[in-house]
Amino acid sequence: MKPTLTILAVLVAAALPARADEGMWTYNRFPVQALKQASGFEPSQAWLDNVRLASVRLAQGCSGSIVSPDGLVMTNHHCAHSCIEQLSTAQKDYVKDGFYAATAADEVKCPELEVNQLVAITDVTARMNKATTGLSGGAYADALKAEKARIEKECATSDDVRCDVVALYSGGRYDLYQYRRYQDIRLVFAPEFAIAFFGGDPDNFMFPRYDLDLSFLRVWKDGKPAKMDHWFRWSKDGVKAGDLTFVSGHPGRTSREFTVARIEHLRDEAIPARLLRLAELRGLLREFQRRGPEQARVSNATLFYVENAFKAYSGMWQALRDPALLERKRADEKALRDKVAADPALAAEAGGAWDAIAGAMKRLSEIRKLHEQIEAGRAFGSDSFGHARMLLRAAAERALPNEKRLREYGESQLPAVRQAVLSEAPIHPEFEIVTLAFGLDKMREALGPDDPIVRTVLGPKSPLELATEVVTATKLRDPAVRKALWEGGKAAVDASDDPMIRLARAVDPAARAIRKVYEDEVESVLSAQGEKIAKARFAVLGTAQAPDATFTLRLSYGTVKGWQEGGRNVEPITRIRGAFDRQTGREPFALPKSWIAAHARLDLDTPMNFCSDNDIVGGNSGSPVVDRDAKVVGLVFDGNIHSLGGDYGFDPAVNRMVAVHSRAIVEALRKVYGATRILKEIGL
Amino acid sequence: MKPTLTILAVLVAAALPARADEGMWTYNRFPVQALKQASGFEPSQAWLDNVRLASVRLAQGCSGSIVSPDGLVMTNHHCAHSCIEQLSTAQKDYVKDGFYAATAADEVKCPELEVNQLVAITDVTARMNKATTGLSGGAYADALKAEKARIEKECATSDDVRCDVVALYSGGRYDLYQYRRYQDIRLVFAPEFAIAFFGGDPDNFMFPRYDLDLSFLRVWKDGKPAKMDHWFRWSKDGVKAGDLTFVSGHPGRTSREFTVARIEHLRDEAIPARLLRLAELRGLLREFQRRGPEQARVSNATLFYVENAFKAYSGMWQALRDPALLERKRADEKALRDKVAADPALAAEAGGAWDAIAGAMKRLSEIRKLHEQIEAGRAFGSDSFGHARMLLRAAAERALPNEKRLREYGESQLPAVRQAVLSEAPIHPEFEIVTLAFGLDKMREALGPDDPIVRTVLGPKSPLELATEVVTATKLRDPAVRKALWEGGKAAVDASDDPMIRLARAVDPAARAIRKVYEDEVESVLSAQGEKIAKARFAVLGTAQAPDATFTLRLSYGTVKGWQEGGRNVEPITRIRGAFDRQTGREPFALPKSWIAAHARLDLDTPMNFCSDNDIVGGNSGSPVVDRDAKVVGLVFDGNIHSLGGDYGFDPAVNRMVAVHSRAIVEALRKVYGATRILKEIGL
Repeated sequence: MKPTLTILAVLVAAALPARADEGMWTYNRFPVQALKQASGFEPSQAWLDNVRLASVRLAQGCSGSIVSPDGLVMTNHHCAHSCIEQLSTAQKDYVKDGFYAATAADEVKCPELEVNQLVAITDVTARMNKATTGLSGGAYADALKAEKARIEKECATSDDVRCDVVALYSGGRYDLYQYRRYQDIRLVFAPEFAIAFFGGDPDNFMFPRYDLDLSFLRVWKDGKPAKMDHWFRWSKDGVKAGDLTFVSGHPGRTSREFTVARIEHLRDEAIPARLLRLAELRGLLREFQRRGPEQARVSNATLFYVENAFKAYSGMWQALRDPALLERKRADEKALRDKVAADPALAAEAGGAWDAIAGAMKRLSEIRKLHEQIEAGRAFGSDSFGHARMLLRAAAERALPNEKRLREYGESQLPAVRQAVLSEAPIHPEFEIVTLAFGLDKMREALGPDDPIVRTVLGPKSPLELATEVVTATKLRDPAVRKALWEGGKAAVDASDDPMIRLARAVDPAARAIRKVYEDEVESVLSAQGEKIAKARFAVLGTAQAPDATFTLRLSYGTVKGWQEGGRNVEPITRIRGAFDRQTGREPFALPKSWIAAHARLDLDTPMNFCSDNDIVGGNSGSPVVDRDAKVVGLVFDGNIHSLGGDYGFDPAVNRMVAVHSRAIVEALRKVYGATRILKEIGL
Repeated sequence: MKPTLTILAVLVAAALPARADEGMWTYNRFPVQALKQASGFEPSQAWLDNVRLASVRLAQGCSGSIVSPDGLVMTNHHCAHSCIEQLSTAQKDYVKDGFYAATAADEVKCPELEVNQLVAITDVTARMNKATTGLSGGAYADALKAEKARIEKECATSDDVRCDVVALYSGGRYDLYQYRRYQDIRLVFAPEFAIAFFGGDPDNFMFPRYDLDLSFLRVWKDGKPAKMDHWFRWSKDGVKAGDLTFVSGHPGRTSREFTVARIEHLRDEAIPARLLRLAELRGLLREFQRRGPEQARVSNATLFYVENAFKAYSGMWQALRDPALLERKRADEKALRDKVAADPALAAEAGGAWDAIAGAMKRLSEIRKLHEQIEAGRAFGSDSFGHARMLLRAAAERALPNEKRLREYGESQLPAVRQAVLSEAPIHPEFEIVTLAFGLDKMREALGPDDPIVRTVLGPKSPLELATEVVTATKLRDPAVRKALWEGGKAAVDASDDPMIRLARAVDPAARAIRKVYEDEVESVLSAQGEKIAKARFAVLGTAQAPDATFTLRLSYGTVKGWQEGGRNVEPITRIRGAFDRQTGREPFALPKSWIAAHARLDLDTPMNFCSDNDIVGGNSGSPVVDRDAKVVGLVFDGNIHSLGGDYGFDPAVNRMVAVHSRAIVEALRKVYGATRILKEIGL
C-alpha cells in the first residue's frame, strides 16, 4: 500500500489559534507586524519570497527544502522511506544499510515522488463565489468543481506547472496556488533506518529524542540536476535555547475551525473506526514480517506508516476525549452563534449553518462505512487495485470535458496520475494478497455478508481466496502493461479482462454512486455552510487567525524551548551522547554499525535534536527550520505527544515541534558517512 | 492463552431492569407472583429446586444443564472449544472433525473443566456487614477479604464442596453460594466447528442464524459416570413463537447498577483500551494462523475468543456511545440522589457515595495501565507464565493463614488452582512465544520504555527476544515438573531457577504492590460506597429489581419472539433449510461434509435456531432453555446485536437471546451423527 496524504498528514502534529502570535500563516497574509512586536524581527518581502521559493512540497504528503543551487533537497528519511524501499531489492536493502550516491551519476530516480515549488498565490474568491451563487446540494457541488477545474486548467499551461484552487477558512476564501512541478526526483543520501528512526515506535512523538530522520534528494530536469535561483544556506552554529525559529512547510490538515458537530463526529466515529482498523492491521503486519526477512523488507514502510498513524490518531483521540476541549469548543461556538443571531443580516445569511452541518454529519454517519470501504478504497488495499482503478477511471474521465471530470482527473492533475500509473516501483504479490484480503474481510465486516456490494465483490469466495486469485492472475504489476492500457485509453481498458481491472469495473458503479451521495449531501453542505460561517466569523472577529491547514505552504515562527512535564523541566536540546547512552543493541534501540564505529570520532556534545513552539502538524515533516537570516538550523521530523492535540487547537504551554539539529546533520555527514560531496554542496 | 471469565463473560449478552417482569433473578428471590401475573404460570418451590439442581456452571465461564441421570451435561461447543482443542493433536483434529464417544470408555477427560452444581444459598449479609463496620480503605478491604475467607472455609468441608461469598446489589447483600464441585469432566460429543459456528465471525451476534453450537460432556465421579438426582427431560416438540421460556444459567457480569462515573470510565477508558488491544491481537492471530495448518489448529480457540470478545465489546461500546443511554443514567442517578438528599438519615449515610466513587474512578485512571499490565497479567499472556505465577503465589500464600491470603488462594479456592496447575493440556511453545512477545510489547507501549518495571522485565532485550528465551528454556510445559513444584511447596519454588518462574518472581513485588493500591483505593471504595448506594436504593425503591449479574445462577423468563429491524419483522425461528441456502462451500459459510452427506435424510423444515426475550448476558452460554414443564426446548448460545447493550439495561423491544432449537439437536444427532447412545440417554 502506498503512503497517502491521509496517513502522512499525521506524521507530525501541532497547531495554533487563540493566540495571534502563533499559527501556520499563509505567505500572502503573514503577520509581519505581530512578529515584529513579539521578536523585534521584521522580515522583508524579499526575505519572505526567498524562503517561500526555497521551500518545497513533496506532493505525496511531506515538505522539504532546497539547500543548493543544483537542486539538492533536504527532507526526512520517513518522507523518502517508500522510495528507498522501492529502490531496494532482496540483495541490497537501502532501508537497512542506508544509501549514498558518491557521484551525480549514482543518484537513482524515485519512482513516485513529485516536488512542487510555490511560485504564485492568487485570490480567486470572487470568481468561485460567483460560480456558486444561489446553488446548493448537487448543483452547488457540480458548479464548484467545474469552476475549480476551469481555473486550474487555465493556469496549468504545461505539465511543468501544477495549479490547485485551495479553499481556505472552510471556503471563506479561495486562493489559486501555482507551483513549478518536478517529477524526476533522485535519491542522493539516506542513513540507516536504525538511526533515522532510533527508538522506533516507543519513542515516536516522544522527547528527549536522538534521531537522524534525514534524507537528501535531488531535483533533476532534462537529464541534469535542476538549477535553482533560491536555496537555503547553512547556519554554522545552528540554534540554542531561546532562539527565534521559522518553519516553512506544508501542514496537511487541521480541524480547528470545525463546528462542534464535526468535532463530535471525529471523536465518536471517524477516529475510533480508524484506530481500530489500524490496530488490527498493525498486528497483522507485525506477524507478516515474521514470515521471513524478505517479507519484513517489503512491508517495512507500510508498517512504519501504520504504527505512526496509530500513535498519532491515538494522541489526537486522547485530546478529543478531554471534556475541557469540547466545552471550550461549545463555548466558542455559542459565542459566535449568539453574535450572528443578534445581527439580522448575519442571521439571515449564516444563522442556519451550524444545524445544516450537524445534519450533514448525521448523513455522513449513515453512509460513512459504505463510502470508506468502496469509494475511499479501504476494501481494496493494494497497489495493483489502485492502478486498476486509476486506469479505469482515467480512461472514462479523459473522455469527458475537463470541468465534468472527477476532480483528481482534471487536466491540471493528470501528470500526477500518469506518474503514478507508470511508476516502476516494484509490487510484491505475497504482500498484496495479505493487504487485499484484509481489506476485503473488513469490508464484509463493515457492511455485512449480505450487503449487495459485498456479494458482488466476493460472490461465494472468501476474502483470502479472492485476493489470492486476482493478485496472482493480474498482469498490472508490469509497468509496460499499464503503459499500454494508459496509452490505449478507453478502448484498451474496456477490452481488458485483467482480473484486477474486472474487480475495479465491478465496484465502480457503486463506488461512484456513494461518492455522489457524499459529495452532494455531505461535502457540499460542509463547503457551502462552512463558507457562511467563515464569512460570519470574518464579520465578527476579523481574519486575524490563520486558516486551517490545507497541505499548502505556511510559515510559522517560534522559539527554541522545552516545557514542563509532571513538574519537571524538559530541556529543549539533546546531544549525540544521549543516543549512545540510550542504545541497547536491540531494535529499535540499536545504533547502526556505522555509528558504533564512529563513536570515538564524534563530538558527543554536538546537539542532536531540539524542540520549539513552532506551530506545525502532519505534512510539515521534512520542513526546514531556519533562523532570521534564512539559514538552515534544523529539520522538522516530529512533534511531542502534546502536539497531537494540535489538530484542534494550539496549546503554547506544551505543544512542541521536534527537529534534527543542523549540527548533528553536519557531524554525521562528516564523521559517520564521509559524505563530502554533500557537505561541499551545502557550503561546508 | 486460556479463555478466561473476562472473555467468556461476553459470549452472549442482554438484560433487564426498568421492567419488573424481566430480569436475571436469583433463585432465592424469584418473583413468582410477577411471573404468574404475566403468564398465568406459577412455579412451585419444587419446580424451582429441580431446575436449579439440574442447572450447572462451568467454572471457567459458561453454563450447562444435566440432561440424564448419568451426569450427561449439555453445553455449547464454544464452551468446550478449548477442551476439544486440548484433546486434539496434529494427527487428529476434533475441532475440525468433531468428536463422538461411542461408549463411556471412549469419553476423554477435559484437562481444565470444573462443573459446579448449586446446592444452597445462605444470606450472610449481617455477618459481612459486622466485620466491616466503621472501616474504610485498606482496613475495609482486609476485613472484607478475611471475613469472606472465613465463611468460605467454614462452608467448604471438603474438596467436593465449593463455597463463594457473592456480593449482590454492589454489596447491598451478601449471599453464600454452596456448590457441589466436579473436576472429572469428560468429552462425549462435539460436532464439527464448521456447523457449531456456521457463519463464523460475520454472523456472530446476528440473527437469523443456523448454528449447532452444541457439545455434550459428562460428569464423572470416582471413575464412573456420576449419578444425578435432578436432570432435565427432553421436550418432544420444542417451542414455537409465543411460547413461555425459562433460561437457567450463569450470566457473568452486568453494569446496570453502575454510577455514571463508572459508566463513563467504561465508555472512555476501559472498553476502548480493551478493543484496541483485541483488534491488534486479532490481526496478529489471523496472520499467525497462516504460518501453517498446525499453527492454525493450536490457535483456533484463542482466535475465536478474541474475535468474539472484540465483537461483543464493540456492541457494548456502541451502546455506551448512544448519548440517550447516558442521559437516562444521569437522570436516574439524579432522581435517586435527590431523594437521598431530601432524607437527612439517608443523606448522612449515602450522600457522599457517588462522589467517592467518582474519586475512585479517577484513581483507577491513574493506575489502570500498570494494574492491567502487571497484575492483571496483560503483559505476560502465556500459559506457562500463568503456571509460573500460580506456583509462585500458591507457595507463598499457602504458608499464610487462610484469611490473609490473596483471595484466589483461599482454602476453598485451592482445588481450582491445583487443577489448573496440574492440567495436562498441551502448551505450544511457538504460539506462546508470539502471545508473550505481544504482551511484553504492549506493556512497553503502555508504560513506556523507561518505566522501571519495564526495565526490570526486559532489561536490554526486545520483547520477542525475551519471549523466545524464556519460552524456549522453561520446563513448565511438563505437567510433571509443575507437579513437583506444587508438591514441593515454597522450598521447591524458591529453589527453582526456571526462567519463567524467575520472570514471575521478578515482577511479583510490583504486581502485588499495584494490586494493593487497586484493592485499597479503588475496589474497596466501589464496594463500601456501592453498598451504601444499594441500601439507599432499597430504602427508596425497594428490591424489586434483580441484582447485577455475578456469574451465579439466575432464572429468567421470556417469550419466543422476533423483533422489528428497520421496519421489517425478524421471525423468531429459523429452519435447517436455511443453513443449506446460506452455505457457499467456503469458510465460514461451509457446511461440514457430514451435513452435505445427510442433506437428503434431513427434514429441512426442522427448527434450527430461535430467539426470545429472555434476559441473558455472557456467561449464559450453554444455558438450557426449558418450558413450564422444565423440559429442554433449546440451548442458549448467543444474543442478537442489540443484546450487547444489555450490559447497561434491558430493552425489551429489541434485545433477544439466541438458542439452538431442541429439535435441531435431535435431528442432527439422529440423522447426521447417528449418536444413538446420546439419543437413548436423553430418552429419545
